[in-house]
Amino acid sequence: MMNFSMSNRFTVSLLAVALIHICTLSPLSGQSVQLKKDAMAIDSIYDEALVNGRCYPWLERLCFDVGHRLSGSKNAEKAVAWTRAVLDTMGLDSVWLQPCMVPHWERGAAEEVKMYGKGTKPVALQALALGGSVATPAGGIRAEVVEIRSWEELDALGEKGLRGRIVFYNRPMDPTKIRTFEAYGGCVDQRVTGASRAAKYGATAVLVRSMNLKIDDFPHTGSVIYDSAYTRIPAAAISTKAAETLAAAIKGQKNLEVSVRMSCQTLPDAPSYNVIGEIRGSEHPDRFITMGGHLDSWDVGHGAHDDGAGIVQCMDALRLLQRTGYKPRNTIRFVAFMNEENGLRGGKEYAREAIRKGEKHVFAIESDAGGFTPRALTFESADPAFDEKFQQIKGWEAIFESYGIRINKGGSGADVSPLRPTHAVLSGYSPDSQRYFDFHHTADDTFDKVHKRELELGAATIAGIVYLMDTYIR
Amino acid sequence: MMNFSMSNRFTVSLLAVALIHICTLSPLSGQSVQLKKDAMAIDSIYDEALVNGRCYPWLERLCFDVGHRLSGSKNAEKAVAWTRAVLDTMGLDSVWLQPCMVPHWERGAAEEVKMYGKGTKPVALQALALGGSVATPAGGIRAEVVEIRSWEELDALGEKGLRGRIVFYNRPMDPTKIRTFEAYGGCVDQRVTGASRAAKYGATAVLVRSMNLKIDDFPHTGSVIYDSAYTRIPAAAISTKAAETLAAAIKGQKNLEVSVRMSCQTLPDAPSYNVIGEIRGSEHPDRFITMGGHLDSWDVGHGAHDDGAGIVQCMDALRLLQRTGYKPRNTIRFVAFMNEENGLRGGKEYAREAIRKGEKHVFAIESDAGGFTPRALTFESADPAFDEKFQQIKGWEAIFESYGIRINKGGSGADVSPLRPTHAVLSGYSPDSQRYFDFHHTADDTFDKVHKRELELGAATIAGIVYLMDTYIR
Repeated sequence: MMNFSMSNRFTVSLLAVALIHICTLSPLSGQSVQLKKDAMAIDSIYDEALVNGRCYPWLERLCFDVGHRLSGSKNAEKAVAWTRAVLDTMGLDSVWLQPCMVPHWERGAAEEVKMYGKGTKPVALQALALGGSVATPAGGIRAEVVEIRSWEELDALGEKGLRGRIVFYNRPMDPTKIRTFEAYGGCVDQRVTGASRAAKYGATAVLVRSMNLKIDDFPHTGSVIYDSAYTRIPAAAISTKAAETLAAAIKGQKNLEVSVRMSCQTLPDAPSYNVIGEIRGSEHPDRFITMGGHLDSWDVGHGAHDDGAGIVQCMDALRLLQRTGYKPRNTIRFVAFMNEENGLRGGKEYAREAIRKGEKHVFAIESDAGGFTPRALTFESADPAFDEKFQQIKGWEAIFESYGIRINKGGSGADVSPLRPTHAVLSGYSPDSQRYFDFHHTADDTFDKVHKRELELGAATIAGIVYLMDTYIR
Repeated sequence: MMNFSMSNRFTVSLLAVALIHICTLSPLSGQSVQLKKDAMAIDSIYDEALVNGRCYPWLERLCFDVGHRLSGSKNAEKAVAWTRAVLDTMGLDSVWLQPCMVPHWERGAAEEVKMYGKGTKPVALQALALGGSVATPAGGIRAEVVEIRSWEELDALGEKGLRGRIVFYNRPMDPTKIRTFEAYGGCVDQRVTGASRAAKYGATAVLVRSMNLKIDDFPHTGSVIYDSAYTRIPAAAISTKAAETLAAAIKGQKNLEVSVRMSCQTLPDAPSYNVIGEIRGSEHPDRFITMGGHLDSWDVGHGAHDDGAGIVQCMDALRLLQRTGYKPRNTIRFVAFMNEENGLRGGKEYAREAIRKGEKHVFAIESDAGGFTPRALTFESADPAFDEKFQQIKGWEAIFESYGIRINKGGSGADVSPLRPTHAVLSGYSPDSQRYFDFHHTADDTFDKVHKRELELGAATIAGIVYLMDTYIR
């Protein structure tokens, strides 16, 4: 590899500040001394994260001592206790549990999906029931399988082509999307709505190609949402390799049959909690900044990237602010939201309570896109004055430039989005997305897939933007 | 994880073009129609790379059919033949081998480094001889070990403190550097120059802490360069975990001894080759654009990131230009440089020949920083008019923005740097650097550490900048 010389990061930071001073029309342009101080403070946040960061060892404990933690499960209870115990060691002003009722779905015994080619033994296809799916009858369902690549194709087949059959949704993620979340957005409708849209035409079950850009053996679970107008039919994800196998078999054989057997069940809603830790604001204790991720995960793997990473990054961001001696003006809260994956009950409860109490929320950021190298922070708000605020925020890009981070308008996060009516500025932590869907909602989303430095850079980035928002946003 | 909406990449590209048109003072600002065409062409290059890219399967073959390929080895010969065979399938105008003599060093039997604590069995420390090191006597060397953290410490100990002893360089990479190449640059002097600087004071061998930000068991090899003024003493890298173990043992025990046994040898220089493939320019066949990486690697692992990735990316970049129907104005060459790791003979020979023939070289780009997600392209040149050219190049940043890529001044690459006297613009492909030194020069730099999409994005980025340079740079 090459030895190329790079300029010193700190010099870059100061240069960045000079650039803000010279180039921007932001209201900050006269405050270069303060901004130099800010750039140095943010530098020390990154240093602390990279030298003494706690997020990585915390994630290791969450992954190995708790493991996956679907809402309503024993493990979710353990995760609540674990998070509270860590927060209790941090010297915060308050730590508490905010109750919310959550869905309680269980996968039951191992799923089984098989393909029956003529003249060969049945072939097992790697499968996972979709979260929220109903079970099959105990003996399973066996029927002809129909491959569907588009809604038009589904509607064209209609009742005549689909009644009594099993629908196999096989529209892949678009590899040409640079941001893989776009490709996910372009096909997750099959998983979320496919069961009811097939049930409408009398299908008996659905299989969905996993939301994955790789061809591998890991099925990716995730929520199915039933439309109450139609019969609830069983729904499972199959791995991309299984999807390719099945599609090839369908091409080669008319009336190919598959069987699906699943014993999942939905139990009554269970009590659970958001876990909250707070540092009271020194100037405006009644104005709130929230940072968090979701504590629940799917019931496979470790939920390491989704969203253990977001939890430990935001906890560490709080610690980074403390350790670098920052005294927040506003009250800063870390929130471990419960139930993002299949209900958003925690996020909704947090916002409901905030609105009920008339709390003034100025900023909320969520990390829920994996623990990879930071690339951007994205911002949105229902505040009519948001454009002006965003101009100010965009002006800080020169500081974040030395860490390779852009500031853009864009989405925030599922858990903080219910705060929209408060007119808070909402932000999403946006890391590199190339590897995220290799692991998302799979048994392979484990601790070893998270890179220590990448995770730490994220914690520092979140602390950095909270520092700036706390200091400047009114 | 959150579902956040992202704007369409193509729209972003067109917006970028509009921005160039509106905002920059570059000489291109009147050519918006042409630039829209360029943005679309570059979009189609990325699409082709992400849908039909060849770099990933090529890398798999290079890693598994050839493997590591140190200059002068049988495997390096196989790598030359393999590369030529691939180029021969690509419908290029010419493919040839450019001869150069290369160093021929062999590691010999497995190295052995042991630590002798009082009252315990000897402890083996994970070690690799540094490339170019001399052997120890057949029975090895055993002596007291002295830990050194700075050159000042070494010089202060001097002959009195070091004669007859083994020096252990243990200055770690600085974790606070955001770009890990900076941290590497800050301590690789121990590996390159440490042996002779210790030999000057009569030390008998050196151990060097691996250039690695992680604490793990992989020793990282790399070149030692001897100063002919001093005795050549054996030099080995030990893993970061071994370095921590050894440092702790030294703290706990006075006069701790270690032994080093290595049987490496330097053989006479061997004949080898750069492998070159060329598409003749349609307008200026006598002006040259070069893109390449280095074909040789260290003699452990697969040399997957270093620098199999650069080789297959640049080969694929050539193919991407062909497949998207681009007709180069200038002659475009892919060069698989031989011997970057321990001599740079290939890069020097390529430049020597170019200068001897009076070839007009306008641009050269190297990929030799790993196969990770693209972050930047960096540019340098000895051309007195470079600042003006860089202004023009910087104007294209708006196009690369949609792929998350910045355009900066900065280093290029070891193999293309000998072209500096031609006044060509030189560029380095700069991917995300967080993981690079996990693998660099180790047995762990294997195919499975390279991510398909990240690799493909790099190939497209290189093809994209070559397209623009070929079209606009005079």
